[in-house]
Amino acid sequence: MGIIVQKFGGTSVADSDKIKNVANAVIKERLNGNDVVVVVSAMGHTTDNLVKLSNEITKNPDPREMDVLLSTGELISMSLLAMAIDDLGYKAVSLTGLQAGIKTENCHLHARILDIDTSRVKRHLLEGKIVVVAGFQGFCEESDITTLGRGGSDTTAVALACALNADRCDIYSDVEGVYTADPRIIHTAKKLKEISYDEMLELARVGANVLHPRSVEAAKLNNMKMRVRSSFKLDDLGTLIIGVDEMELNKPVTGFACDSSQVRIVICDIEDKPGNAAKLFNLLASEELSVDMIIQSYARNSKNTNDIAFTISKSDMAKFESIKNKINEIVNASNIYIDEDIVKVSIVGAGMIDRPGIAAKMFDTLASQNINIKMISTSEIKISCLIEKKYATQAACALCSIFNLDGAEMADVKGDLPPV
Amino acid sequence: MGIIVQKFGGTSVADSDKIKNVANAVIKERLNGNDVVVVVSAMGHTTDNLVKLSNEITKNPDPREMDVLLSTGELISMSLLAMAIDDLGYKAVSLTGLQAGIKTENCHLHARILDIDTSRVKRHLLEGKIVVVAGFQGFCEESDITTLGRGGSDTTAVALACALNADRCDIYSDVEGVYTADPRIIHTAKKLKEISYDEMLELARVGANVLHPRSVEAAKLNNMKMRVRSSFKLDDLGTLIIGVDEMELNKPVTGFACDSSQVRIVICDIEDKPGNAAKLFNLLASEELSVDMIIQSYARNSKNTNDIAFTISKSDMAKFESIKNKINEIVNASNIYIDEDIVKVSIVGAGMIDRPGIAAKMFDTLASQNINIKMISTSEIKISCLIEKKYATQAACALCSIFNLDGAEMADVKGDLPPV
Repeated sequence: MGIIVQKFGGTSVADSDKIKNVANAVIKERLNGNDVVVVVSAMGHTTDNLVKLSNEITKNPDPREMDVLLSTGELISMSLLAMAIDDLGYKAVSLTGLQAGIKTENCHLHARILDIDTSRVKRHLLEGKIVVVAGFQGFCEESDITTLGRGGSDTTAVALACALNADRCDIYSDVEGVYTADPRIIHTAKKLKEISYDEMLELARVGANVLHPRSVEAAKLNNMKMRVRSSFKLDDLGTLIIGVDEMELNKPVTGFACDSSQVRIVICDIEDKPGNAAKLFNLLASEELSVDMIIQSYARNSKNTNDIAFTISKSDMAKFESIKNKINEIVNASNIYIDEDIVKVSIVGAGMIDRPGIAAKMFDTLASQNINIKMISTSEIKISCLIEKKYATQAACALCSIFNLDGAEMADVKGDLPPV
Repeated sequence: MGIIVQKFGGTSVADSDKIKNVANAVIKERLNGNDVVVVVSAMGHTTDNLVKLSNEITKNPDPREMDVLLSTGELISMSLLAMAIDDLGYKAVSLTGLQAGIKTENCHLHARILDIDTSRVKRHLLEGKIVVVAGFQGFCEESDITTLGRGGSDTTAVALACALNADRCDIYSDVEGVYTADPRIIHTAKKLKEISYDEMLELARVGANVLHPRSVEAAKLNNMKMRVRSSFKLDDLGTLIIGVDEMELNKPVTGFACDSSQVRIVICDIEDKPGNAAKLFNLLASEELSVDMIIQSYARNSKNTNDIAFTISKSDMAKFESIKNKINEIVNASNIYIDEDIVKVSIVGAGMIDRPGIAAKMFDTLASQNINIKMISTSEIKISCLIEKKYATQAACALCSIFNLDGAEMADVKGDLPPV
């Protein structure tokens, strides 16, 4: 008998029928002989509606008050879920972030968890209760309410699982697992039985919206097994996320992802002298603009100038526009060119570490499709190429085909699956 | 410079525009030179919607979870109001029941306030902040959330005002004050400038839905001045509720009220022996059925039996039906007769204590209208008559006229009004 932490996202608790369905999923896990701690997000569009309300009041809501407002969404879903579990004859108790002992930094809207005092959760488990915890929230000084920002509920679930030394953390949502590629684009994409933390992190960062990287990082750090699975297909085991040493690596490439959320910026004709690039990126950093890919072209012209190109998130464009003049002052560019017509395609695989030639195979494949590569970035287990947006599907099909991401040949799971 | 506690009900914070209006009312009071503590209810129909959600989940929601659910309504309105005040350039901080130190009994759905630790509220006031407190809620053991039941937010406001030794507690809603009679029935009914706690209590109990008796009782006990006023007419001082010794009593009758929420039950032919009535009312009490008026007729028939008639709330009829058979077993009645076709008309006035003949004048007036009186109950400052429902308006007009409740001759206020 171990502890399983289950997390249910907003679509899984979107209405009362779905909450009853979640109650069944919780009890199913309990009947497997496990103690169950459940972390819930706010119902469906609750959080969006709360944000809308605050926007009607003011354009600059006080962060502390915003956290009070946002925290109510999870209080509603957790109390309803506890009622639904009670109604099925099991004892449940819901806990706010404060009651569950989730202590965070003394900051609002994107606080990090500092410590979890699990004594109350453990006591309720000993009393035979199913414990339902509000995701996305904690408390700081003076019992003030904090929220954890994007991916907050996943983070709550993993952090609780680690603090409770749970057997596993199951993330339930409306997706059935982690796929080799986006099934909406590659219809033959296959669900992976397992994936390593690092592969999941790279996929998450390049646009596979299954899990927030924060939660995967926390799981990796604590070697906590995670499972991504569907709340609507309870018999489906989904995808297990584990350490790379526990996996059988029989394929160099595990997944393909496509990210169309970025914009390419080209700063033309920067004088080629030391420190200019540093000045530029220091300015971007001081405005909290995250830069992804960077390329600096060699100075080959008579003017002895460089072009520097980089990508930023579309959502940061307003910030960028506000500092465009400052950039011009600093680096004296001839032109700042903005290209929104791009997409980043990436292949990810822990197996590529020891297998040379994967990058070359990717570039060859794109070239054979007459797709021009505008930028390249790589990590140990990921290769990303920036291409024209219109080629996104064509590139996806060609890459999934060449790296066997659409076939039946999947990475098989070594050994037994944990009981579910 | 004193402390004013303001309470705004659900209709006053029903949408974002109304919340901005409340922010203005708060700042208006602040500009009078007072420290301001604001207690808010949930927005409009929020609480109803939450109850509906819980009904979709289960018919028997766990009380502890219900309190978690219901408490969210006030968290939403208080955070939005704090944002709105901030937006107008004043510093505000919102506090949950827990953060405001409102400790209650260790029970749910209708907890009573045991104690208020005002240290945090006072500190924020010293910091120059406007403090916004969630109405209707407190905390018990282990920081668990409790709610105060009906009239909860009014109770929070008065209890806070007493604990803070405030100058006054202003209850804002969509009514402009306390009227001599219901203006929807008596169009010439007049708003009272002042009324005593006891009169307000009697009026509240007989159906003038302005204030919950709990809050008036608490105010009376602590001699806390209250003001009932409109959140939509900020220049209107509404009605001041004060001790009878502070009032000028120039009228025997201050108000008229009409209550159509009751049902008359007649238990026929109960054997006239000691203890039968006690058995009956003990049974009713054990089922938590509140009985209002009671009449026992004398045994004058050959069977040596009595009739006992009493009134209960319509909302308790389901409970009553469930124990009807038990009643028959206990008192062996020939018939249990239920009369829904009734209404209770009452006149209230602290001035009637020393003036005999008020009751006779009331009965005469009804008789002159050919209205039969089915039951009578009295207190020191109230006389109530149960009559047929169809005569409600006719009785109201006649009584308001005879007791000058519709004229211009109002109780004048002695001395100056407190600054508003």
